Amino acid sequence: MRKEKNISPRTDLAIEAREIVQEQDEKESSLDGIEVTEDQGAEYKLTRVHITTKKGSHTMGKPVGTYVTIEAQKLKENDVECHERLIGVLAKELAELANLKRHDTVLVIGLGNWNITPDALGPKVVSKVLVTRHLQEALPDTIMETVRPVAAISPGVMGITGMETGEIVKGIVDRLRPKLLIAIDALAARKTSRINATIQLSDTGLAPGAGVGNQRKMLNKETLGIPVIAIGVPTVVDAATLVNDTMDCMLREMKVQAEKNSPFYEMLRAMEHEEKYGLITELLHPYMENMFVTPKEVDAVVDRLAGIIANAVNIAMHPGISMADINRYQS
Amino acid sequence: MRKEKNISPRTDLAIEAREIVQEQDEKESSLDGIEVTEDQGAEYKLTRVHITTKKGSHTMGKPVGTYVTIEAQKLKENDVECHERLIGVLAKELAELANLKRHDTVLVIGLGNWNITPDALGPKVVSKVLVTRHLQEALPDTIMETVRPVAAISPGVMGITGMETGEIVKGIVDRLRPKLLIAIDALAARKTSRINATIQLSDTGLAPGAGVGNQRKMLNKETLGIPVIAIGVPTVVDAATLVNDTMDCMLREMKVQAEKNSPFYEMLRAMEHEEKYGLITELLHPYMENMFVTPKEVDAVVDRLAGIIANAVNIAMHPGISMADINRYQS
Amino acid sequence: MRKEKNISPRTDLAIEAREIVQEQDEKESSLDGIEVTEDQGAEYKLTRVHITTKKGSHTMGKPVGTYVTIEAQKLKENDVECHERLIGVLAKELAELANLKRHDTVLVIGLGNWNITPDALGPKVVSKVLVTRHLQEALPDTIMETVRPVAAISPGVMGITGMETGEIVKGIVDRLRPKLLIAIDALAARKTSRINATIQLSDTGLAPGAGVGNQRKMLNKETLGIPVIAIGVPTVVDAATLVNDTMDCMLREMKVQAEKNSPFYEMLRAMEHEEKYGLITELLHPYMENMFVTPKEVDAVVDRLAGIIANAVNIAMHPGISMADINRYQS
Amino acid sequence: MRKEKNISPRTDLAIEAREIVQEQDEKESSLDGIEVTEDQGAEYKLTRVHITTKKGSHTMGKPVGTYVTIEAQKLKENDVECHERLIGVLAKELAELANLKRHDTVLVIGLGNWNITPDALGPKVVSKVLVTRHLQEALPDTIMETVRPVAAISPGVMGITGMETGEIVKGIVDRLRPKLLIAIDALAARKTSRINATIQLSDTGLAPGAGVGNQRKMLNKETLGIPVIAIGVPTVVDAATLVNDTMDCMLREMKVQAEKNSPFYEMLRAMEHEEKYGLITELLHPYMENMFVTPKEVDAVVDRLAGIIANAVNIAMHPGISMADINRYQS
Repeated sequence: MRKEKNISPRTDLAIEAREIVQEQDEKESSLDGIEVTEDQGAEYKLTRVHITTKKGSHTMGKPVGTYVTIEAQKLKENDVECHERLIGVLAKELAELANLKRHDTVLVIGLGNWNITPDALGPKVVSKVLVTRHLQEALPDTIMETVRPVAAISPGVMGITGMETGEIVKGIVDRLRPKLLIAIDALAARKTSRINATIQLSDTGLAPGAGVGNQRKMLNKETLGIPVIAIGVPTVVDAATLVNDTMDCMLREMKVQAEKNSPFYEMLRAMEHEEKYGLITELLHPYMENMFVTPKEVDAVVDRLAGIIANAVNIAMHPGISMADINRYQS
Repeated sequence: MRKEKNISPRTDLAIEAREIVQEQDEKESSLDGIEVTEDQGAEYKLTRVHITTKKGSHTMGKPVGTYVTIEAQKLKENDVECHERLIGVLAKELAELANLKRHDTVLVIGLGNWNITPDALGPKVVSKVLVTRHLQEALPDTIMETVRPVAAISPGVMGITGMETGEIVKGIVDRLRPKLLIAIDALAARKTSRINATIQLSDTGLAPGAGVGNQRKMLNKETLGIPVIAIGVPTVVDAATLVNDTMDCMLREMKVQAEKNSPFYEMLRAMEHEEKYGLITELLHPYMENMFVTPKEVDAVVDRLAGIIANAVNIAMHPGISMADINRYQS
Repeated sequence: MRKEKNISPRTDLAIEAREIVQEQDEKESSLDGIEVTEDQGAEYKLTRVHITTKKGSHTMGKPVGTYVTIEAQKLKENDVECHERLIGVLAKELAELANLKRHDTVLVIGLGNWNITPDALGPKVVSKVLVTRHLQEALPDTIMETVRPVAAISPGVMGITGMETGEIVKGIVDRLRPKLLIAIDALAARKTSRINATIQLSDTGLAPGAGVGNQRKMLNKETLGIPVIAIGVPTVVDAATLVNDTMDCMLREMKVQAEKNSPFYEMLRAMEHEEKYGLITELLHPYMENMFVTPKEVDAVVDRLAGIIANAVNIAMHPGISMADINRYQS
Repeated sequence: MRKEKNISPRTDLAIEAREIVQEQDEKESSLDGIEVTEDQGAEYKLTRVHITTKKGSHTMGKPVGTYVTIEAQKLKENDVECHERLIGVLAKELAELANLKRHDTVLVIGLGNWNITPDALGPKVVSKVLVTRHLQEALPDTIMETVRPVAAISPGVMGITGMETGEIVKGIVDRLRPKLLIAIDALAARKTSRINATIQLSDTGLAPGAGVGNQRKMLNKETLGIPVIAIGVPTVVDAATLVNDTMDCMLREMKVQAEKNSPFYEMLRAMEHEEKYGLITELLHPYMENMFVTPKEVDAVVDRLAGIIANAVNIAMHPGISMADINRYQS
């Protein structure tokens, strides 16, 4: 879970960044360098956002590359059969993005703090991934043909280790020399409704502080020398986002009822364009700075999400593991 | 954590119930049957609310009896020395309310769901209370003189057991026949600033659904046949309370800036008297119904609060345990 | 996990009690009142011991009734498919022993200490049992037709609660009035090879201290007024049993090599009949009194065993749950 | 917890290695290159073993260097006051071995598997160590003067990560460039009585497979380029060690009673010199290969040991932390 001091509602989701761009500027040219395709299924919506140019990257505040999002309210629920189908979708997208050769070694990194439930997604996935790299010499070739060499670690957060996470990962990557890094993390979103209902895959690495001057070491091809796929789920929103969302609803409601062109309507309209989110943040500060909003059953939901992602990673990585093996290789 | 479908911000705290009464009705007679004394220390504020008559009970929506509240922002922080002083204050208040004879047996009940961090306060306290009732025959008299017979259990919540908690407690009380029940629970508050910063003791039992027709079995002298002391801490607020608190701040801010007697000021004033909380709740429903607001470090804070309460219970109950033994009898 | 001060290796397993009887006395009449049928499958061995008379009960040191044992070394391993077949076998035996009417309420009790991994079997099963009793009024009849009213609780051990477990259970049973109690517990065995490889079902209740004067309250039809089915797995052996088992192996080895009728052979033979186990226990005392022997991966094994038993309970109890639903109703 | 396939009882403790040397060879010259000083206090025994030459290293099967052992049966018990005194002793020895300059950075590594209680000592210590390295820029100089830059991580075991632990540590050390590595690990001992009652400090690094051809990467000055202090506690013995210990007791007992010069006595004597341990291991194999012996309350004991070591590390490392701060900086 990466946080920043920023007065606009921060989002790690490319689909939300695009919504913000569209809200702020209705000209078509504003989306130059950004290609979007959507695929609305019965159970989920799959969106592919391709940022193709520097201009697009600047507009979106995100690096050039591909962002695939799976949205499904059922991700929050305990619907075993739907989750199995989503595992299949996710595994397919991941295998495509990864584009690995048969014997390439992969390192899976679980980011986040295992002591804080909504930030524990990454470490939980890592604990469920089938790790095989150390077995290469011990197992017979016929078995090893069915698995790819996979290593995995959850390095912890800086407050726990005293070290920048990027430094730890860089140190390990330099010794292990894998062909691909897969990093799993909880994300920030700006819509309460997306909590635990969205999975984003991207091939651009993790850019925790892009655009806001955060000094944290990025995990991407430039810094690590290997491709990085990030898999993330927004698991909380901060208190200000919740208030903001609610006030938006209220204003919409009031606008409907207020007469157009009345001074009150004007005020409300004006207010939307002012830094409403900034005002809220300021008011919530200081005593609510550390508050976050999360569903009551967050422990169970994060556990299930971790299972979905880990199953997808196992299927996408190991040639011998298929949909029939779901949950079989999880401890 | 007891919840209800109610459109006014629900509170388990007598001090908040009184604030609401005062806000709604400024006549002095409105507080008939309610006596309040306050004691403002450097580190904490101690408030005693005595509801002395049926009228007072009806006004407050709480049973006749005594409610002692300790408020201290430091309860949230990791301030070992301040917490030791608060343990002393709490132990003294508890011993007074309990008013036990030397060899009276006490049963401590930890209410709430141990799988949901902010609801796990009661079970955590129970795990730290020094349990001695089963040692009565094994230990020599000289040692037994230093301890009171104390039993303790966390029965779980109805969603876990399939049984009304009150039924389980009643069954155990009927067989064990203790002289006092001490019940520990997480509470609902209506001010975000009170989360994890307030401990309430009361001698009126627990009345989960008082006034809103909730059918849950009460734990009090009428239902159990023995006195019941409730110890509680508000550990979360619901999302609607957070939004409400924030909007109150915003309105206050805007009122300061708006010209008095302008139509806008009037609208804001009017809005305060409308069912703002109800409107918010309606808007948040359905997708935020299960959202709650909690501090990031809730696990650590609830652990520390459980330690404070358990130490106070141990000192108040056992003649041989004093302030010098803090943390010594916790596993 | 029930323990006793006893110099002969203590067993909760009827199949082991019978082995001891056979070892000590080779006359056929010694097994009067004890009927045994065995069913050796490819993956497991199913043994039914019926103690039919008082004489049989006295010989075996166990109450009159039925004891069904499933033995399978694969219970220790992570063999998902074999475990699914064993769930089916267990569910069938349990349904038969339970012999319930369609709407009878069942209470499931998880005995043992959740803080000690090998003693946590009962509480772990309870956390995975589908609890439905509290839904009777909330759910539509068509759904309720598919489930039986089931309640469940793990009362904890006396060292944690200060109360005799039997007292707590009696208190709850008296208020809830279920038609059947199912109690799950870790057992003591006298063969190291049976650890985590044996499940015993019995309809005789739990008789923790039968025959050794232990005063603990029994959980059976006499004390509770309802039938009691016990489900148990031996999860540890004490250190003395391990030493004893090993020395038996050594003696057998040495006997093979020693000439018959030599004084040495005689000594070894004699030694077997002496109180070897008692001697070992004495030697191990005091510094090894609290030592127990357990497999390295005990956490994972107990988790899987709990899953097997909980699935079997769910299938045996709820008409609408079948083998196709394995793991689906576990949190 | 490092294990090996070896038929002689394996020990990580220098004091046990010396006992073995003394048992096997009573000549004085056998201890050439090994200096031992002992300090018997009322509550604990402090032994310093210095291996000063290659010959001594070969005799002991351990690298040249210093091994400090604190033995105290009270380490197993819940004796807060004694533990505080032992923290003081341990902190003093650690500070001396570490011999750091004022601002040297230290990396603390918790070895072992957090999923297996007796192997979780290292990770538990790490979770209680005060980590400060990341605060160097954020905090004012006056506060930073009271703390040393300390980082800490628990990398997990190879079965979990797929990577050699030494590789991970090497990668991190190469990037972080600390001046000292402190590695905490559970150890193997060959006497059941030493379980959880002994803490060993050494400045020789960790040599998991010394002498038995184990290929695991060592953590020492040669491999990492910085000094390594290892802190360890034996938390389990394997089943064979338990049986061996018990049989030694039995033989001693029987020798006392047997007439000297009888053939039986001769046999017992002979047996001692045979590969008794090897025989036991063989007999226990295969079904007990993975069994280990541990005290019932192992969770609580390992927690307390971790607290003792973490407090000692905090006091030895940070100039501003003293005995008055025990437990204050642990989460």
